[in-house]
Amino acid sequence: MCELLGMECNVPTDITFSFAGLALRGGAKGPHADGWGLALYEGKAARTFIEPAPAHDSPLANFVREHPMHTLLAIAHVRKRTRGPVSLVNTHPFVRELFGRHFVFAHNGTVRNVRRFKTGRFTPIGNTDSEWAFCAMLAGLQNRFGTSYPTSNRELWDAVAKISGRIGSVGTFNFLLADGQHLFARCSTNLHHIVREAPFSSATLSDDDVKVDFAKLTTPSDRVAVIATQPLTRDEKWIRAEPNTLWVFRGGKLRKTLESR
Amino acid sequence: MCELLGMECNVPTDITFSFAGLALRGGAKGPHADGWGLALYEGKAARTFIEPAPAHDSPLANFVREHPMHTLLAIAHVRKRTRGPVSLVNTHPFVRELFGRHFVFAHNGTVRNVRRFKTGRFTPIGNTDSEWAFCAMLAGLQNRFGTSYPTSNRELWDAVAKISGRIGSVGTFNFLLADGQHLFARCSTNLHHIVREAPFSSATLSDDDVKVDFAKLTTPSDRVAVIATQPLTRDEKWIRAEPNTLWVFRGGKLRKTLESR
Repeated sequence: MCELLGMECNVPTDITFSFAGLALRGGAKGPHADGWGLALYEGKAARTFIEPAPAHDSPLANFVREHPMHTLLAIAHVRKRTRGPVSLVNTHPFVRELFGRHFVFAHNGTVRNVRRFKTGRFTPIGNTDSEWAFCAMLAGLQNRFGTSYPTSNRELWDAVAKISGRIGSVGTFNFLLADGQHLFARCSTNLHHIVREAPFSSATLSDDDVKVDFAKLTTPSDRVAVIATQPLTRDEKWIRAEPNTLWVFRGGKLRKTLESR
Repeated sequence: MCELLGMECNVPTDITFSFAGLALRGGAKGPHADGWGLALYEGKAARTFIEPAPAHDSPLANFVREHPMHTLLAIAHVRKRTRGPVSLVNTHPFVRELFGRHFVFAHNGTVRNVRRFKTGRFTPIGNTDSEWAFCAMLAGLQNRFGTSYPTSNRELWDAVAKISGRIGSVGTFNFLLADGQHLFARCSTNLHHIVREAPFSSATLSDDDVKVDFAKLTTPSDRVAVIATQPLTRDEKWIRAEPNTLWVFRGGKLRKTLESR
């Protein structure tokens, strides 16, 4: 299994604290030693740091932890290989262009017989079920909306819920998907979120003694949604997702919970 | 103007030395202060480090210089903005999937009225002539070969020469293009290369006093082609490209020089 981390905010926010919690599970405290990745949006494009090696003792992961990187939208992943060898092509998150913007995707679980789903113009580069499922979702979105970003947000949300529900019906399909404006978080089995907003308090990482007082780092109008496979902090109240649902985040808020089956 | 750097080898080679020379031109010794990027292949996929800020005093560029990264194929770029604002979406090298592999592209020069060229399924994310030209080249390759990587190398080389010649006929189109197997280097105005092979000697960076003795770092069968806008070392003999030609590198060798007009 793998662990997912997403962050979606209304002001550029540093992901270092949450990423540190995730990276601890990448080889040190967890069994997720087969690679890690982090994608950070700046507008319609994301830049990605990936490494097919454990996050815990990675110089690049250390670099990311030590250099604050502010973003409105980010997806991170630590990998425990289930399908496909350990290599760069199989390291999440995956990034592709659709509608003239980057889509970013990270997956937790296994989708059986994923090759039954058509991937259209998106050819997988590696050999994971995850990348194939991502390509199939993008192909589904392109079939539905053509070449332009949908003008109706609600239609986009419904399409993501429906297409991912179809893929999720034949496997474990917990994922994070971002398009530069939204963060979509689908639950098959395990997914949690928290929205940090005023009045801010402090939080302590579950796997370490690192503590952050968000009140000192924020303004009252800040809002940050954090989504993770398992709660990353031990003193905050995380909300657990229902199986076969899709959460849609935008502006640091949970905008909608949709059925996805 | 911008500066290009490519490396293509027959054994995994550290690009740190050449990248250090390029990064010096990114704000310290040159006027190329508007961003930098480096893409390193591992098989069919590349990982990319990009930053819309000067390379010279960038912590991330320092990280890259200080951590040896071995690869068979790499493309780097430092940018002096001519078209399009300074931002992540406009930072080279650009990466897209075609034929189930990453294509990587970096450009030096300006292509006028680039929007006359069709980009097919590849929608530019930013607003540079460079990314548009890259998308147009990929669309041309897909039109020519469909969805699978060409079985004939020679047909691929000819197609790259022809498509890029058409785009280069209306602008300055010096570029580096890689597909995980080849490094294509097209010259409109300025491009140089050197092939380092046995017997190896030492070399000194043009813009600094850093000296490397390649004899100590190599085995007699190693072969490394380095391509750059301007020679990066002061004591080696670089070969200057003729305008409107395309060099094709593979296995650390110059395989072919094709006309591209």
